[in-house]
This record gives sequence, C-alpha cells and structure tokens, in this order.
Amino acid sequence: MHQLQAAGRAVRAMAEWAKQLAGIKGVMLDISGVLYDSGGEGGGVPIPGSIEAVEKIKASGLKLRFCTNETQATRGKFVAKLQRLGFNILVNEVTAPAPAACRILKERNLRPHLLVHDDLVPEFDQLDKANPNCVVIGDAADNFSYKNLNEAFRVLIGLENPILISLGRGRYYKETDGLKLDVGVYMKALEYACDVQAEVVGKPAKMFFQSALAEMEVEPQQAIMIGDDIVNDVGGAQQCGMRALQVRTGKYRPCDEQHPEVKADGYVNNLAEAVDIIVKQLHK
Amino acid sequence: MHQLQAAGRAVRAMAEWAKQLAGIKGVMLDISGVLYDSGGEGGGVPIPGSIEAVEKIKASGLKLRFCTNETQATRGKFVAKLQRLGFNILVNEVTAPAPAACRILKERNLRPHLLVHDDLVPEFDQLDKANPNCVVIGDAADNFSYKNLNEAFRVLIGLENPILISLGRGRYYKETDGLKLDVGVYMKALEYACDVQAEVVGKPAKMFFQSALAEMEVEPQQAIMIGDDIVNDVGGAQQCGMRALQVRTGKYRPCDEQHPEVKADGYVNNLAEAVDIIVKQLHK
Repeated sequence: MHQLQAAGRAVRAMAEWAKQLAGIKGVMLDISGVLYDSGGEGGGVPIPGSIEAVEKIKASGLKLRFCTNETQATRGKFVAKLQRLGFNILVNEVTAPAPAACRILKERNLRPHLLVHDDLVPEFDQLDKANPNCVVIGDAADNFSYKNLNEAFRVLIGLENPILISLGRGRYYKETDGLKLDVGVYMKALEYACDVQAEVVGKPAKMFFQSALAEMEVEPQQAIMIGDDIVNDVGGAQQCGMRALQVRTGKYRPCDEQHPEVKADGYVNNLAEAVDIIVKQLHK
Repeated sequence: MHQLQAAGRAVRAMAEWAKQLAGIKGVMLDISGVLYDSGGEGGGVPIPGSIEAVEKIKASGLKLRFCTNETQATRGKFVAKLQRLGFNILVNEVTAPAPAACRILKERNLRPHLLVHDDLVPEFDQLDKANPNCVVIGDAADNFSYKNLNEAFRVLIGLENPILISLGRGRYYKETDGLKLDVGVYMKALEYACDVQAEVVGKPAKMFFQSALAEMEVEPQQAIMIGDDIVNDVGGAQQCGMRALQVRTGKYRPCDEQHPEVKADGYVNNLAEAVDIIVKQLHK
C-alpha cells in the first residue's frame, strides 16, 4: 500500500515536468556525473543506462550537444576516453572551456600563465606564454600545490591590470573514490588574495551556454539541459532561458532539491529515466 | 629646495598623528614585517632599528604586548627564534591564535581536524582529535597541498553542523624571497567549497584584540597598534577602539595609503621611527 502510494507520487511528480516538454528540439548533456563517474583505473565507469540513453537521443531526431566543464585533459583526449568507455560521442559534439578560453585569449592578445592539469597544457600550444599578462586556472587537481598557487598569485598581483580567467567555477565533483575540490575553490582563493573578480569561461557563464546553443542550432526555449550540478548546470541553463533537469547521480545531494536559489524543472533518478520520458513525449 | 619642501611636508605629516598621542599607556606590536622579515636561513632578518625599538619601549614605562597571527610554529618555538635574532621578547608577552583557539575548542568540546604547519601541531597536543567535529586551519604553507585541502573539505562537508575555525584571515605576507599566500586564502576556498562562514581566531577579530588588551591591562583608547597589514592590524585595532599606525616595511605597499576602507592614524617608515615619536611625546 505504502509502496503503491510512493509509486503513484513518483509518477505524478514525473508527469508534471514531462507535460512541459512541448517544443523541445535539442538536449544538452553534462558529462561527468551524468554519463559516467570519473576516477580510478580506466578513468571512470559509465553510469548504468547512459550509453544507451545517448544512442536513444541520437536515434530520436533530437539535436544533441555535450556541454562540459572538464579541464583535466584536452577535449580530444577526453572524448577518446569516453569512446573507450563505450559512448557514441565525437569531438565536434562537445563544448568545453579550454578551446573557448583560447579563442578569448587570442582575441584580446592575452599571454596566459597557466595553472592547469598537465594534460590540458597542449590545448594552449598555439599561444604566446612569455611575459604573461593574465592567469588562467582550470581543474589542476594535484597541480594545485602551495608552490603553484603561490606562483600564479605572484604573477597576478604583479600585473597592473590583473586578469584572472577561470575555466568554470564549480565547488567540487564526485570521483569513484569520493568528492574532489574543483577549480572554483581555487578561483575564490586567488580572487581573495588579489582582490580581483575572475572571468569565468565555462558553465554557468551565459556566453558559454549561448555558444553551445549556437553550435546545436536551437533557441534556448527549444533546449533542455540535463546535469548533476544544481547551480552550474541547472541554474546556468535556466538563466539562459533553457529548461533544465537535475539527475540524482554524480555529485547530486538530496538537499539540492531544497536549494535556496535554484529549482530544477524536474528531478530524475538518472539520464536513462530522463531520456525515456523526453523521447516518449516526442512521439505523443 | 625641493628636498627641503619634501622634508617639511614629512615633518608636518608626522606631527599630525604625533599630536594625537595623549593618554597612550600601551603599545601593541605586530611581529612579522614589523620586527623582522621572515624566511630564508635562520628564519629571517631583523628590520633595522627594531631590536633597539623594542628595548626603548620597555625602558619607557609603556606597557608592551606582541600580537601576532603567526601560526607556522608553536608560540614557544617562535619566541625562541626571535630571541636568537636578538629581540628582548618573552612567551608570556605574546598573544597568538593557536593558544586562543585551543581555549575555544576546549570550552565548546570541539575535536579538530587540523590543517596546519607541522611545527604548530604540538600546540594542540592536549586535545582529542578522534572523530573530528570541526576543521581548524592555520598558515600551513607547503602543507596546503591539494590532497590535504581536499581531506579538510571532506571532513567539513561531512559534518551535520560544519564548523571551520581559521587562525587569521590574512591574504599574504612577505618573506625574504617574496610574497606568500596566507591562511585567509585557504579559508575562503573552504568557505566557498562548503558554503560556510569561518570563525576567525586572530587579527582582525575583535575578541582577539580584546584579549590582548586585557593581558596588557589597558583600555582600547589607551593603546596604539603598530603593524604592516592595513586591514588586519590597522583596521582590526581601530574597530576595537584603538589607534593604529602602519609601517612602510614588511608587506606594506604604497597603495595601502589609499585603501578604500581603512585609514591608519599615521604612516611611518618603520618601527624605529614610530617608537621615537611615541616615546618623545611621552616626555613632553
């Protein structure tokens, strides 16, 4: 009886956001915590049902774009890992912060001092890095040593016009062995140290979502974002005029559903459930 | 002629704050950047004239208290280093964050997870550290690795009622080989990661200055603080009702004299100059 009531509630709750799906032409997917959990040997494990869910979107006729804040590897290397894990994903389907930052640096004649993961460095190969006039930080993980953070700090505080570019502003993410501090935490550290405000390239920046939408060739109101981060995925996409679902995988925590500022259009157990409902609505 | 004008201006500027010294009974000194510059072999070098300036205060009949945010070593070890450098200073003349934090932890039955310098750990020997229910961070320097910060983060985010105690909130300090990030930067990082507000033990916390004043047995309006940090020394002391001078040594930067929120009662080239003027006024 109790189980039946609970099931009834779940179906009703599900139905609410599913009713709002009219006009959806494109799906935007976060990667880490939605497609797979990163970390450990082999670089991570697919979240059950996600490999099939991606295929299902591609087969449905919906447009699909992956929108990630991943900066621990070049986009090419990152996509190759996902392919090895079994995902049907191509480099040109992915919007990521480092290539976006490179374009901005070139446009503004900025020479970066990099505080990033070793595997991300090749993404900046084409840029002049002598006499840096800005600092770029990404998710550097173990490269966030005291020595390296202090070095970035000294470059920044020595600049007449200190420019700090942060590849995302996430607080933490979940790997197979637990929660890990993300780039946003070190962005805040440098902001405080130098009394500056970072420019964020990546989610939740509006420009970042807009460029992903442009690459998908749909309008914000025609797109739905699916992510595990209530602020950076859900809040960011909504700010941009998109609808957004939070999955209960990855870094999701139950208290996210009572977040003081952001309310997702819907909460789903995982990507597979979200895609089932979206595709079913499509054929009504 | 130009030199004479400059000298005249300097004397006039000096005279202004010196006129406000009536009623001063005690001097409170910051240590790093005022008495000595830390770092390098031997642990640092005295700032010229400072050893004699301390003696001069002690001989003048003024009360004297050292008020430091130093947390790279126990108070005993730190004072021993200053004595080796030639300073007339005793352990019981020094107010420092770690002993103050220990009293607070005991009072509130808190069991700390420590993220501090190895040499500070003995200060917490008397405390139960099993099953931590709070995180204490000090100036951990090279111990601020990604691994250690992540460990502190996991403890904090795992607590039902996350308590973060920070031994100071400084941005950076100056060592003989350049600027170094201070504990406040990592406090901000953890605050952002866990969406908490740290409790600061150390300057500029009002309670910290008040306990230093109580130990000196003078009222705030009878005391003058001398420090190199415009916010933590000067601003903190003024908030507490004290007067405060900034020295142009240590981490001082010329732009401090145009700080948007804090204006020192006076600016002096170094501790020796400040003490000369204070003691001279005393005998008028």
